[in-house]
Amino acid sequence: MKRTLIAASVALLSSTAMADDHQQPNIIYVIGDGMGFEYISAYRYAMSDLETKELAETQFDHYLTGAALTYPEDDTWVTDSAASATALATGEKSYNGAIGMDNDKTSLKTVMEYAKQSGYATGSVSTSQINHATPASFFSHHPSRYEYNEIADLMGQQIVDGNASFDVILGGGQQYFIRADKNWAELIEQQGMRVIQDMQMLDQVEQAPVMGLFAQKGLPHAIDEGKESLAKMTSSALRLLDNEDKPFALMIEGSQIDWCGHANDIACAVHEMDSLNKALEVVNEYIENNPNTLFVMTADHSTGGLTIGRDGEYAWYSDRVMKIEHSIAYMKEKLLAMDSDQWASFVADAVNAELTQEYTDELAMAAEQHGEDREDALHKALAYITADITGTGWTTSGHTGVDVPVYATGPNSDQFRGYMNNTELGQRLIEIVK
Amino acid sequence: MKRTLIAASVALLSSTAMADDHQQPNIIYVIGDGMGFEYISAYRYAMSDLETKELAETQFDHYLTGAALTYPEDDTWVTDSAASATALATGEKSYNGAIGMDNDKTSLKTVMEYAKQSGYATGSVSTSQINHATPASFFSHHPSRYEYNEIADLMGQQIVDGNASFDVILGGGQQYFIRADKNWAELIEQQGMRVIQDMQMLDQVEQAPVMGLFAQKGLPHAIDEGKESLAKMTSSALRLLDNEDKPFALMIEGSQIDWCGHANDIACAVHEMDSLNKALEVVNEYIENNPNTLFVMTADHSTGGLTIGRDGEYAWYSDRVMKIEHSIAYMKEKLLAMDSDQWASFVADAVNAELTQEYTDELAMAAEQHGEDREDALHKALAYITADITGTGWTTSGHTGVDVPVYATGPNSDQFRGYMNNTELGQRLIEIVK
Ligand SMILES: [Zn+2]
Ligand SMILES: [Zn+2]
Repeated sequence: MKRTLIAASVALLSSTAMADDHQQPNIIYVIGDGMGFEYISAYRYAMSDLETKELAETQFDHYLTGAALTYPEDDTWVTDSAASATALATGEKSYNGAIGMDNDKTSLKTVMEYAKQSGYATGSVSTSQINHATPASFFSHHPSRYEYNEIADLMGQQIVDGNASFDVILGGGQQYFIRADKNWAELIEQQGMRVIQDMQMLDQVEQAPVMGLFAQKGLPHAIDEGKESLAKMTSSALRLLDNEDKPFALMIEGSQIDWCGHANDIACAVHEMDSLNKALEVVNEYIENNPNTLFVMTADHSTGGLTIGRDGEYAWYSDRVMKIEHSIAYMKEKLLAMDSDQWASFVADAVNAELTQEYTDELAMAAEQHGEDREDALHKALAYITADITGTGWTTSGHTGVDVPVYATGPNSDQFRGYMNNTELGQRLIEIVK
Repeated sequence: MKRTLIAASVALLSSTAMADDHQQPNIIYVIGDGMGFEYISAYRYAMSDLETKELAETQFDHYLTGAALTYPEDDTWVTDSAASATALATGEKSYNGAIGMDNDKTSLKTVMEYAKQSGYATGSVSTSQINHATPASFFSHHPSRYEYNEIADLMGQQIVDGNASFDVILGGGQQYFIRADKNWAELIEQQGMRVIQDMQMLDQVEQAPVMGLFAQKGLPHAIDEGKESLAKMTSSALRLLDNEDKPFALMIEGSQIDWCGHANDIACAVHEMDSLNKALEVVNEYIENNPNTLFVMTADHSTGGLTIGRDGEYAWYSDRVMKIEHSIAYMKEKLLAMDSDQWASFVADAVNAELTQEYTDELAMAAEQHGEDREDALHKALAYITADITGTGWTTSGHTGVDVPVYATGPNSDQFRGYMNNTELGQRLIEIVK
């Protein structure tokens, strides 16, 4: 971690810091993976009326306080989700790929580990697998984010050793925790932590500790099924953590905004934003009833180089975005399973638009390919068609370096105003839970 | 104007509102034309050290308070500079192209007109011509932004009629105010407002009113010459307005960030940001010595679909951006005046990089064209080369719909926190000066 930005307002003593000093505040720390400002704007406009300009109210209208720099401690300004989650969780910059580890591969204590030590109940909710970069960086330490089995082993071993850094952890990841070579689910249950694999079962869980593994890897995209999953997991996590009769720290990740961004899939992204918005409704209701709760939200970076408008046209067709019924990933899977002479009519139905000659040519070109080339060309065609119909710009299949929004409310929220480094969020939260 | 966003914190009574009620506060209203968050991030990283990650301090590190929605009252979410300047100046949404006019083409009273009526001294500084969309929307009313001569006539007539809505107006625009058919400069001087055409003369001007016309149209790009122009004009405007022994309202526009964005010219954009940064240094020094000054800064929209990184690569080469010595416009002009077999070596020198075969092929293709096609192809080649060298993404030659940053400090600055509509900035400033 290098020099810290000095935002004038941050130096002010928080007026609410001492509001409730008989108990440390609950922490609700929300991360929209890939959620740059473009995603907030796109979501708001997608939910609003293009013709009348009647604006939809969203949960993102509230609590904006500043912006954060996201760059890693690496040879680039552009971070990956592991380095930025490590910064947000530990208050220290690291290299792209690092899970809760410094540049020299020593483990960094995370805000969740500090919280646990201080007597907090802790938890995590994500639409990714629970051992994916963002949740993993809060609860484990590994030099390489893609070693999913090894990260699952670290998390499983914590529990078996009676040192779990979380009380509630909900998301996907069955294939990493229930393996032929190692059935962590069984071992974890023997230790007294319930493991459930059906989201409907959540309502029957009366108390922590609990691990929810609701998919093999990540949960399905919100646009395809399960728009309510994140809200439901959030609601259950808050209920279980609130039950614990001590303060809690909960990390909530809208994991797949980023995945839709990587796919350059605007409809997918907007629906992931909506899924997060629904979870924020749950959060905001909790906060209203429990004012000794610090809410902090940010993104780890922006993804895809999303822009609202492109190619010289002063337009973005939010109505057409909302008419698209499926993710590109879903469409591609269906298309690959059918005869290519049905492709054009399937796509026209799925995006609810007439296909131009150019669009059908793109599909026809993909149909001529085989194997992985066919999949890639089909993805490219679908990304092109959905972007062109809606007037959406994209510049990359990766991340970008733009600063990301910061939202905060509740006790100590004045510490999260103005420009800050992403590490400062982690540092300040650690100070608060310590 | 449709529904107003309710940012929770905005509803709070400003703690500083009553700080100095014997005199209304000075207003310094800065507009970075096209200055989306991407430009702030790009500028900061361009000024910083990619290798050591030592961050440069910029004037944009301070006073960030929120973000603004920019959409027009039109059939699109993407605004032009006229509609957004009208929103920022009058507090009302209008159609793309409108200068200080409502959708039904009635004039809307601007914050500068309200200020004048309340006994303020008023002024404007821009690197565009003074009758360009942004300054024009603060001081005149016309249904169409591109009628530059007619807008100059409106501004000139105000002065001749003894009803000038400004005391100090500095920028470019000689060709509109000194025409064969109408020499406004002469008429304006007869009215007692000094007209100067040489920026060096500014130091000799001891008091308002003054009009500065320092170029035929816009001033030269900061990267090519005149990096200090905006700071110099700002410093002079503050000196002259501060002399007036009454409160003042000054609009300062970094006009050409947008122009570089339209050209997809990253080095040009970063140097325009630096020019604005230098003007902000002057502003911040003034504010420190004159605390009864409300500073508000925003952008009218973002331009070009700029992204930091592109094409799947997690990188942005800030060092290479800073090695580019000229704007694309400057390079193009020079290239068109020389033999095309010299193009490649001229470009390699100007961008301080080796040209790949792909780059020289692009230039060779442009060389084969004639007339406007040659100009267009050359622009495209130079935009491609500079973007590719630096890892910069662009999606449009126009604007995009992303929310833009808001900065504020000083009396009443609490009214500019969180998300707001761009009209709310105009409305609140009008309430303050009224
Ligand atoms: Zn990602
Ligand atoms: Zn523009």
